[in-house]
Amino acid sequence: MEENKIRIGITQGDINGVGYEVILKTFSDPTMLELCTPIIYGSPKVAAYHRKALDVQANFSIVNTASEAGYNRLSVVNCTDDEVKVEFSKPDPEAGKAALGALERAIEEYREGLIDVIVTAPINKHTIQSEEFSFPGHTEYIEERLGNGNKSLMILMKNDFRVALVTTHIPVREIATTITKELIQEKLAIFHHCLKQDFGIGAPRIAVLSLNPHAGDGGLLGMEEQEVIIPAMKEMEEKGIICYGPYAADGFMGSGNYTHFDGILAMYHDQGLAPFKALAMEDGVNYTAGLPVVRTSPAHGTAYDIAGKGLASEDSFRQAIYVAIDVFRNRQREKAARVNPLRKQYYEKRDDSDKLKLDTVDED
Amino acid sequence: MEENKIRIGITQGDINGVGYEVILKTFSDPTMLELCTPIIYGSPKVAAYHRKALDVQANFSIVNTASEAGYNRLSVVNCTDDEVKVEFSKPDPEAGKAALGALERAIEEYREGLIDVIVTAPINKHTIQSEEFSFPGHTEYIEERLGNGNKSLMILMKNDFRVALVTTHIPVREIATTITKELIQEKLAIFHHCLKQDFGIGAPRIAVLSLNPHAGDGGLLGMEEQEVIIPAMKEMEEKGIICYGPYAADGFMGSGNYTHFDGILAMYHDQGLAPFKALAMEDGVNYTAGLPVVRTSPAHGTAYDIAGKGLASEDSFRQAIYVAIDVFRNRQREKAARVNPLRKQYYEKRDDSDKLKLDTVDED
Repeated sequence: MEENKIRIGITQGDINGVGYEVILKTFSDPTMLELCTPIIYGSPKVAAYHRKALDVQANFSIVNTASEAGYNRLSVVNCTDDEVKVEFSKPDPEAGKAALGALERAIEEYREGLIDVIVTAPINKHTIQSEEFSFPGHTEYIEERLGNGNKSLMILMKNDFRVALVTTHIPVREIATTITKELIQEKLAIFHHCLKQDFGIGAPRIAVLSLNPHAGDGGLLGMEEQEVIIPAMKEMEEKGIICYGPYAADGFMGSGNYTHFDGILAMYHDQGLAPFKALAMEDGVNYTAGLPVVRTSPAHGTAYDIAGKGLASEDSFRQAIYVAIDVFRNRQREKAARVNPLRKQYYEKRDDSDKLKLDTVDED
Repeated sequence: MEENKIRIGITQGDINGVGYEVILKTFSDPTMLELCTPIIYGSPKVAAYHRKALDVQANFSIVNTASEAGYNRLSVVNCTDDEVKVEFSKPDPEAGKAALGALERAIEEYREGLIDVIVTAPINKHTIQSEEFSFPGHTEYIEERLGNGNKSLMILMKNDFRVALVTTHIPVREIATTITKELIQEKLAIFHHCLKQDFGIGAPRIAVLSLNPHAGDGGLLGMEEQEVIIPAMKEMEEKGIICYGPYAADGFMGSGNYTHFDGILAMYHDQGLAPFKALAMEDGVNYTAGLPVVRTSPAHGTAYDIAGKGLASEDSFRQAIYVAIDVFRNRQREKAARVNPLRKQYYEKRDDSDKLKLDTVDED
């Protein structure tokens, strides 16, 4: 069993935020070490600093690479300049450099097959910007570096409550023009595939939110529902992707309607995230679907307002670990189930004999 | 004390929805009749039909006008064609006519001083449209008919949690261009005044949400924060209106930050209402601020999906009654407190004597 433990690469994120706090708190519980083999990409020195400042009981071993990581312990791969200093809550380009260094090393070792999944602690999106990193966030960076040309889909989730976004980090001014039939269909296809492959749902039911208030109110409050969203959904239904809506967004979560669906596709950032976080802020997980790599992160950010105070809850980070493990296992199962498929049995129509041809070799 | 009971004009709304159900359930509790004198504008026949269909124990008296309404009982003013038929969950132009007739009669009797406040049951916004009514909803209609030129502000509230909207029923495509410095300032001024006058808060603290995701992220995700919202807030602060933000909308409600403010000003419909309803769907109240008349309504609609089934909760309607009573009383108190203000005492600056002039008559 030990051999099968999933190796989780954890990037340290911004060293002046709550990242180390939630990582160390999570793995101060020894049962977490029975579930997986966690490897932090970061700095043993910084980890020790946080541990002392916050008085968290969590031991770790220093390793040169994930391949040295032992079972039942937390390991740290040093990939940060030892001179870097922690200054809680301070946006610091040096901390941004350290965050990027950890991310790059994790990606490198992922490519070498030394880790199975990646869980990222929050970064400061401003201090990390550099020649190597000019993206709105982790999602876009990882899509570029590990996507192999696949498009990603941002999903915020808590258990069976999963909200995906058609558009993410764009101004409100650009939402209506960015939303096209093709984009909605692309996201629906990724979402559908992800719900099947990553969460093991046979025939996933997706709810689509409308763009305009009151679902456009029959055209009184906007035409995108009629002209873009509904046609996009109809074509996807013909391809076997079960989707419902578009639903008015204001009451969809509050009414509990969302509980009838495996996934909810929102048209834009705040439409999906504001009600999601209202209901599931504490232990929400951000999952980047659609890519060959499994990457999750907590739903919160660096939380400078409470950094270094010991007040951060590790619930969201712990859930991010759980989701990464679940998705990785589901993908393995799905793959295993497809290795030796039953040979297709079909009726030969050409001769109208209506006889089952079991002797035909199916080279599909 | 009886003499001072507030007379509440209640419009029946759409007779095929859950309106009568929530009204009758509310007043089946006799203690509600000790708080106020409720007068339904509608139809005794339709009320009796709902009462029987839903098996609610609520008695009412038929009156010709609100001036005949007795204490400790529910009264119904008949203003609906007796031929009209209830067909649960059916959008029916006849029901729309009945809803409008009730609304018009309530407005008439409000003008005559026969009722103190108006509480509206939900209408079907499509069937009510006619030559006399071509508005997106109650709010705009009442602003036009009883506003005396004042602008209204839509507030969704539950106890101290109050969300107001800068823009309401417009397509997402038009939000960014509709939001101007002037509009934000107009809404901030109404909100501030309303929090003081209607809710008795001496120095209200208003949180302003940003338009773009992550509050525009320093300009990376839109410029409206820098160019429109922040300048609007600064000028209002100079006028003594205390406002904070603009805050990123996605985590504002989920983090509990909203609890530190007396009011939250959202930039558009779904941004404010989706997280509000996620947290307070069951007993939210819609209050139309800014007008001389006090008008509230439940936060839900006609709810055709559960009409006639006895499943509707009256919590939201009951809260709408409470809020109408509270606001009316607060306004009376505020008015009474201003009848005989203390004479201003001031220092006469002209002669540099720095002496308090109590003998000067202040004709302010």
